Amino acid sequence: MSDKIIAIDAMGGDNAPVETVKGVVTASKAVKYKLALVGKEDIIKSELSKYEYDKDKIMVVNAAEIIENCETPTEAIKHKKDSSMVVGLNMVKEGQALAFVSAGNTGALLTGATIIVGRIKGVKRPALGTMLPTEKNRVLMLDSGANVDAKPEYLVQYAQMGSVYMEFVEGRKNPRVGLVNIGTEREKGNAVVKEAYGLLEEAKSINFGGNTEARDITLGDFDVIVCDAFVGNVILKVMEGLANTVLRILKKSLMSSLRTKIGALLSKPAFKKMQSDFFEYNDIAGAPFLGLKGLVVKAHGSSGYKDIVGAVKQCERFIDGDIVNKIAERL
Amino acid sequence: MSDKIIAIDAMGGDNAPVETVKGVVTASKAVKYKLALVGKEDIIKSELSKYEYDKDKIMVVNAAEIIENCETPTEAIKHKKDSSMVVGLNMVKEGQALAFVSAGNTGALLTGATIIVGRIKGVKRPALGTMLPTEKNRVLMLDSGANVDAKPEYLVQYAQMGSVYMEFVEGRKNPRVGLVNIGTEREKGNAVVKEAYGLLEEAKSINFGGNTEARDITLGDFDVIVCDAFVGNVILKVMEGLANTVLRILKKSLMSSLRTKIGALLSKPAFKKMQSDFFEYNDIAGAPFLGLKGLVVKAHGSSGYKDIVGAVKQCERFIDGDIVNKIAERL
Repeated sequence: MSDKIIAIDAMGGDNAPVETVKGVVTASKAVKYKLALVGKEDIIKSELSKYEYDKDKIMVVNAAEIIENCETPTEAIKHKKDSSMVVGLNMVKEGQALAFVSAGNTGALLTGATIIVGRIKGVKRPALGTMLPTEKNRVLMLDSGANVDAKPEYLVQYAQMGSVYMEFVEGRKNPRVGLVNIGTEREKGNAVVKEAYGLLEEAKSINFGGNTEARDITLGDFDVIVCDAFVGNVILKVMEGLANTVLRILKKSLMSSLRTKIGALLSKPAFKKMQSDFFEYNDIAGAPFLGLKGLVVKAHGSSGYKDIVGAVKQCERFIDGDIVNKIAERL
Repeated sequence: MSDKIIAIDAMGGDNAPVETVKGVVTASKAVKYKLALVGKEDIIKSELSKYEYDKDKIMVVNAAEIIENCETPTEAIKHKKDSSMVVGLNMVKEGQALAFVSAGNTGALLTGATIIVGRIKGVKRPALGTMLPTEKNRVLMLDSGANVDAKPEYLVQYAQMGSVYMEFVEGRKNPRVGLVNIGTEREKGNAVVKEAYGLLEEAKSINFGGNTEARDITLGDFDVIVCDAFVGNVILKVMEGLANTVLRILKKSLMSSLRTKIGALLSKPAFKKMQSDFFEYNDIAGAPFLGLKGLVVKAHGSSGYKDIVGAVKQCERFIDGDIVNKIAERL
């Protein structure tokens, strides 16, 4: 067994610590690294006692405080030194852990990671990457949460970091990069995007494929798409909102007559298949925060144990792909 | 019969002139105003000859040129003085028409309308409004296409103009305005949105309801939502792209077994109902370009005749609601 450790925030997220601990126990059987559950020791140990697991592969690191979702990121990181999040991030900083996963307060995690773990030299702004479903392979969108006011040169670095990630973690050769824009023609867009287009064309270490309209994102013609975090958030949230709304309307409509009720029953496997193929992807549940001197992954706030397993496995690929050093070299 | 005229670009859009002329003939039986088809006279007359209609209610205004979709807006407006678009906009400018509808080149229409028809005094930037489907009533989003680099004060005017539109065209009392943002808390957002929040709170003539996350747009809790045109375009296009993608995946999945094929057949009415209730809304097919000294409506490029009928009816409500003067008063 390796001495390398992946730390997991046992207290962050809507379903912590129950689902987090279950996820870590499950993941411990699938990954080669040791897993550290960070949080209130007594609570974690009581959860762990429900399971059979290899004691050499799971350790508990005590942290007495919890950062709640409603807290202001900077304040929380500054004042709650003994929170599961700050303790976990410090483990990465000090080399005790190679990666840290948290489903907790996103703002606090991004702020804390930037302050505690720190940026790779040359990286202007770390960016949060999210894998989006498409009709082909998934596409990595960044920035999906860190910098709402992006400069053109940030977008170029997002493209470079995202390309490294997709090549070495997801195995895509020569990943194709798209710039999210309001049209495919190069002269389209706002001031930031127009300038970014020229910089992306000149950037040596990426395979720039031009603009992508938001309408075409789900076609899957790109491996990496870049945008500022405001636009990235809007893309993520519109997808989530529309999917939920359409599903609710359709369900109501299907339940309105006997014929359609029977139809719905017979169609069920097709809906389930779409759900699992398109909307669920536990194997890549975590959003990597790229550009830091260590690996930090944001798991969705509503992560279930399968998502935690996915995020931990993702960290293993991260570590094996040596992403931090590769990004440092590429920039 | 009234002498008031609504002009329609007979040559703009993917299905012009066939669907446009059919739409105008159909609309002429439903609205009280006279309709003017603007474009190549011989082509329009030959199309018109297919139908029975009241000759007093449809006139043809000749325009020898056509602005194509690929043309640069400013150049096209400048050089094609005898295009259906420029001729139609001039009719509005000179008071010969009270409104102009076009399904042609969006950029050219917005540029041409701003230059030829001109802004209402006090309006910093006219904005394109699009009605989005929600689980409740439709919401007017603006700006959905005009200004990709918006200043905070533009967003306030969008809120004011949109409120007038929703009150006097759609009959919503005291319309609730939302600011598209990445979170509901007031301190969230990029620099423009943060400043806009304070200005919207202070603005007297609107009912500001705070931030709306993109995820919640389709819930329908607002009557008007405001954002810059880059974000507005992304919202529209993500909705369009995701709906198409999900439909394609689901169809494929439903056709993969006999059971689900039968299920699909039986479920069909529910899908059709969702399609017509949520995704189609011909009665409000046009996007009003608000803030001008006359009424200009952008119909979707792929408009069929029903969309043209919808846009013409919308113009009638525009005229009857006296929107231009109401906006001038409100600002």
